[in-house]
Formats: sequence, structure tokens, C-alpha cells
Amino acid sequence: FQSKLPEVPTSIFSVMSALAHKENALNLSQGFPDFESDKNLINMVHKAMVNGKNQYAPMPGIFSLRQAISNKMEHLYGVSYNPETEITITAGATQAIFTAIATTVKKDDEVLIFKPAYDCYEPTIQLFGGKAIAVQLDPESFIIDWKLVKSLITDKTRMIIVNTPHNPSGRILTAIDMLQLENILKDTNILLLSDEVYEHIIFDGELHQTAALYPVLAERAFITASFGKTFHNTGWKIGYCLAPKELMAEFRKVHQFNVFSVNHPTQVALAEYLKTPSNYLNLNNFYQQKRDLFLSLIKDTRFEFIPSKGTYFQLLNFKNITDESDYDFAIRLTKEQKIASVPISVFNENGLDTKVLRFCFAKTDETIKKAAEILCNI
Amino acid sequence: FQSKLPEVPTSIFSVMSALAHKENALNLSQGFPDFESDKNLINMVHKAMVNGKNQYAPMPGIFSLRQAISNKMEHLYGVSYNPETEITITAGATQAIFTAIATTVKKDDEVLIFKPAYDCYEPTIQLFGGKAIAVQLDPESFIIDWKLVKSLITDKTRMIIVNTPHNPSGRILTAIDMLQLENILKDTNILLLSDEVYEHIIFDGELHQTAALYPVLAERAFITASFGKTFHNTGWKIGYCLAPKELMAEFRKVHQFNVFSVNHPTQVALAEYLKTPSNYLNLNNFYQQKRDLFLSLIKDTRFEFIPSKGTYFQLLNFKNITDESDYDFAIRLTKEQKIASVPISVFNENGLDTKVLRFCFAKTDETIKKAAEILCNI
Ligand SMILES: CSCCC(=O)C(=O)O
Ligand SMILES: CSCCC(=O)C(=O)O
Repeated sequence: FQSKLPEVPTSIFSVMSALAHKENALNLSQGFPDFESDKNLINMVHKAMVNGKNQYAPMPGIFSLRQAISNKMEHLYGVSYNPETEITITAGATQAIFTAIATTVKKDDEVLIFKPAYDCYEPTIQLFGGKAIAVQLDPESFIIDWKLVKSLITDKTRMIIVNTPHNPSGRILTAIDMLQLENILKDTNILLLSDEVYEHIIFDGELHQTAALYPVLAERAFITASFGKTFHNTGWKIGYCLAPKELMAEFRKVHQFNVFSVNHPTQVALAEYLKTPSNYLNLNNFYQQKRDLFLSLIKDTRFEFIPSKGTYFQLLNFKNITDESDYDFAIRLTKEQKIASVPISVFNENGLDTKVLRFCFAKTDETIKKAAEILCNI
Repeated sequence: FQSKLPEVPTSIFSVMSALAHKENALNLSQGFPDFESDKNLINMVHKAMVNGKNQYAPMPGIFSLRQAISNKMEHLYGVSYNPETEITITAGATQAIFTAIATTVKKDDEVLIFKPAYDCYEPTIQLFGGKAIAVQLDPESFIIDWKLVKSLITDKTRMIIVNTPHNPSGRILTAIDMLQLENILKDTNILLLSDEVYEHIIFDGELHQTAALYPVLAERAFITASFGKTFHNTGWKIGYCLAPKELMAEFRKVHQFNVFSVNHPTQVALAEYLKTPSNYLNLNNFYQQKRDLFLSLIKDTRFEFIPSKGTYFQLLNFKNITDESDYDFAIRLTKEQKIASVPISVFNENGLDTKVLRFCFAKTDETIKKAAEILCNI
């Protein structure tokens, strides 16, 4: 039996979390909060279970949750997604991304991605016979050179994948980026996958530039989103996908045979919880305070950084500390200093090592202080 | 944009459940119970959430649940699956089936399936560029002609998919079937996908013939299983896959980029619940009583039947009643008689119409009596 993904290792998140656990280290590697989800939300799930919402949800998700998402898109961005035909609930954003690629990418199709890239895009493209065309971003600015992007478009280009706010860099796409992207895509059949799972975690008063706001993008975009990152329950594995009707009809054909439908009681609870916008609108402030606390505590270390503009990740450059590889350094920090992070070479093209580690600050202030204390001694 | 699954309609389960809902009909179409999951199990999920099991579970599932499954396989069948390397928790059995096919089926590979077949196999095979080679079973006996199967093996045959107890027919594979299958597969590289989601719903003292019991099968088999069907919570969407280490390593490569991991609190609860074998061992009796109740009440109707030997489905042949197509008859019964079923032509090769409907008896005795009353008047 010949592997279809011979070069794929276990994901860095599993590797680092397992090592953190084994070494009893502070785990700032895999992105998840070490504090709890709202008790009210937990009680809503229980209520839904007690009320008998334990059988198959409808294949695209329960209507009230799709309606709540539609309302949110309307209120936040003034865009309209039809809950009947343009919104599907998924078993996490990863399943939404996988299914969007499964729906669209055929043998020999090219898909443009930007590195550093979240690790699921490339193997998924490969699994469907497509070819990832990677654009390596400048490791400091992470700015996209749209002229270069345009020059890479061929008649095999099926899709471009963007991610804003961007994991791992914490950079966000600006309105100018979006307009440039529109410029490239208009009058083409190229699709867009816009991974917006950190939509509600964005700092310094910046606005999230969802693809939904840009007509040329919206008409061809699968937008993927996550409840886990917004409501502090990454382990519930609920997300969703937005797309225009025709694309969504195809997406659902694959979705129904991949997972068929998604955990029902959790959907009932989220539908209720989403009705209170403060449940997600306060998130920007909440995480900005955590970012600021973390950065103020480590500003005198030898790590260099540009403050994250979104996501719950902060990159730290360690070139003034050691010339070890980022991977070796991350392992050593976990074992010796008891703090785990993610070496970003794993997200770069050809494993490019820019001497940068990614730290997750979705942690209690106490954890952040402990982490900073360790980093101050390095 | 060209569809990758141009011929795929919305699944019959969504269609019939939506119609049943609209028509306010008894819904015996899509397979799910109309009674509740154990309150203790529901409370265990709540406890897990309150105890903070709300972040990512490990990618292959939590260890205690994999251990509990391993113990079950050992105690029930005397076979050993290593929880570390040979068991993965999935977002329902459908995701396990999809992922097993995704892991193994390449362009132009042939996969043998038996019709009537559960509706997810064929489009999933097609999505990965494979070709389903369908063997239509005799519509009364549903017996597999293994000589015919052997004659269909080519050097392109990648996999055979079996399903026991069989949905929709309620037939089970016997030890002789399994030995014949071993005979065909030994000394080949052909893989097996054994869909055993109704493992714990089997009647008349018959034994479930899991592929795990047959060495030639076990060494090449992905076995897929479901908690939803066993614990009356199809809407929780938790299942699992068993496979030998080498195959499971490949399965996990795909799994980690498809869903990454599965709802965490539910896993914690199921791990605890599985420790009490009576929670699943009583299921055979429980459903046999429901089958017997249903059949005793409809024995004087013009419907013909052979009692189901497993699953919670019963086929009824209506050739003495009307020569309408099964699809039309199913729709008409739903609209006029307020009882929904599944026309099995949708599972047959080329839509072969054998004048048979499938009824789900995972219902309260009250619902079963109401359904029988309706059927008695037809
Ligand atoms: C799916 S586990 C990884 C979580 C995450 O999004 C990250 O750490 O980047
Ligand atoms: C995934 S919905 C279908 C449920 C089921 O297994 C059936 O009705 O056959």
C-alpha cells in the first residue's frame, strides 16, 4: 500500500502539545485558551441535551444557528448571506477548509497559498491531486506582493487561499490588499478560500477585512469561520462556511458524505448564545489586553518582535539569542525552560528558518506572567 | 466552475425527513430514535464540560476512550487493537468511512461495493477519482455471490466495502461469508472497509461477524463504528475507526487535516459510559422486541417481509398493493397517510425498483403502534 501523503508528518500542534505535556511545560504552542468557556454557554448545551436535541441535526446545520450567523454578517458588515442556501455548519473550521478544497480542486489544478501557511492547506490540496503554488512572504513584514501573485496566475489556477488575521504572523490584510486581490480575480474563474477564523480577534482599532465585503471576492469565496476560537471552546469543534448559493450547493454535496451533519446540542446552544453580540464583540479588547500584558513583560528581553495585529499568537525572533534552528530551540525551551512554542519554519516554504517562534497568548494573566518570567531569563 | 459530483442529489435522508416534518408525518425514514439517550450519559457530558474538557482533544481521540474501545474488542471478540496506534475517534462513522476512502483510493482505482448500498460510499469513491464497481444483490435474499465477486477482481481493485449488519436490508454476513471473503483477499493487496455501525443491533441470537475476527481480513481492514446508533444519540456525531497500525498511520494523516480532532467533552463521557458493558449488550434485546412488536402488528397487512436480522430497519415489499414506483409510493404515503419511509431504489444499482420501502423501528412502542395502525389501513 502506497501512501497518498508520503511526506506528511504528525502536525506540529500534536507534537508540541504532547511534548509540553510530557515535560510538564507551559503550553504556549498549540492555539487554545487555558481558561474556561462561559458557564452560561455550557448550561445551554446541557439544556439542549435535556430537551432532547440529541438526534441528527439537519445536514447544513440547524436553521436558527444559520440565521444567527446571517444576522451577525448583516449587523457587523452589512452583507447578506441567505441562511437557507449560503451557510453551512461544519465540524470545526478545518473541516470547512478541507471540504471547500475537496469540492473544488481537481487533478493538476493549481492553488496559490502564502507562506508561512497554516499546515492543513497544502496536504489537502495534494490529496485531491492539486498543486500548491507557494508564495513565501517576507519574514518581517509578511506583506503580500500582489504583482508577484498576478505573475503566478496560469490557466491552471483554480483557487487562491488567504487568511486574515493571519496565523502564525498576526498580520491582517488591509482594504488595499483586498482591492488588489479583487483586481487580480475580476474577469477570471478563479475561486477564493478566505480563512477568517480569527475574525473577532483583531487589535488597535483595526477593522476585519472579510472577503464578504468585496463583491468580486464574495461572489467566488468560501469564507471559513470558527466558534471555538471565539467562545473559548476549541474542543467542541464547531465552525461554519459561507459561500454564494451555487458554490455552497457543491460544498454541501461533499459535506453530506464527509460528516453528514454536526453535533446537534452544541448548535442549539450557539444559536442562542450568538444572539448577544457582546459575547463576541468584547473579544478584541479581551485579547488586546493579553497581548499588551505579554509584550510589556518581555520588552526588555533579547527577543525581538512586532506586535501582533490579530489572532492570539505573537511571533518572537530569537536571532540575538542563539543560532540554533527554530525547531531545536523550541524543543530545548520546552525541555529545559519548561515553555512550549511553535517553530514557524514548519509553516514556511522549504522549511525556511527565520529564527522565529510563535507563542499563544490565549492564556490567563497568571500563565502569561509565568511565561514572561521564563522568557526574561533566556 | 464544474461540479465534481454532478449527479449527486441531496441525500434521501434529508429529503424524506424534511418532507415528514413538513407533512407532520410519522418519520420512520431517516434512521434515528425518537426516544432519549440515557440521562446519565447526558450528565457525564455536562460534568466533562464543567470540568473544563472544552479544548482540543488529542488528534486521534482521548486515550481513555480508545482504551475503552480496545477493552470492548478484547472482551467481546477476543481481538486486540492497540489504543495508541490502531484506534481513532471520528466525527461520526460517516467521517470514518470518508477518511478511509480518502486515505486509500487513488485515480482509476476500483472499489467493489454491494447494492443496495448506503449512499455515501459511491460519491466518496468518485470524489477521489476512483470507480465504484457495484454488485447488485438479489432483492429478497441479499446473499452475496462470492464467485461473482472473485470474477470482478482486477489489478485495479483497491478495496472491497462490506456492511454488516446491512443497511437497508437488515441482513447479516455469516461466518461462511467472511471465510469466502478471506479466500478472495488472501495473497492480494486489496484493502477492506468493513462498515459495522450496527454491530450491537443483531437479533435471534446471531453473532456479529466483525472483520476483526478474521486474520486475513483484519490485517487489511478499516472497521468503522458508531456511538450514535448504540447510545441513542445520532446527533452527537461520534464514531471511530479501527485499523492495523500501518493503515491507521495513513488514516490519521488525512484525519488530522479533515477534522483534526473530535468533540472533547462527549469523548470523556463516552469513555466513562463504555466501562459498563450492559450499556451496549442489552441493545440486541431492546431492538429485537421493537422489531417483533412491529412485525406482529403488521403481519396481516398486504406488505410482505422477511424479518430483519440486524440494524433498526425493516424492509416491506408492497408489490401486492400498488405498482407505483417505490419513490412515488413513499412520497404518497408521507403526504396522504402521514408515514415516512425510505424507497430503497435510491440504494440500488441504476435505481432498480424492487417495490420495497425501508422503515426505521428505532421508535417508542407508541410510535410503532401508530405506524402499524397506518400500515394496516393500506
Ligand atoms: C487544530 S490544532 C491547531 C490550533 C491552531 O489553530 C494553531 O495552533 O495554529
Ligand atoms: C446520516 S443520516 C442517515 C441515517 C442512516 O444511517 C440511515 O437512515 O440509513
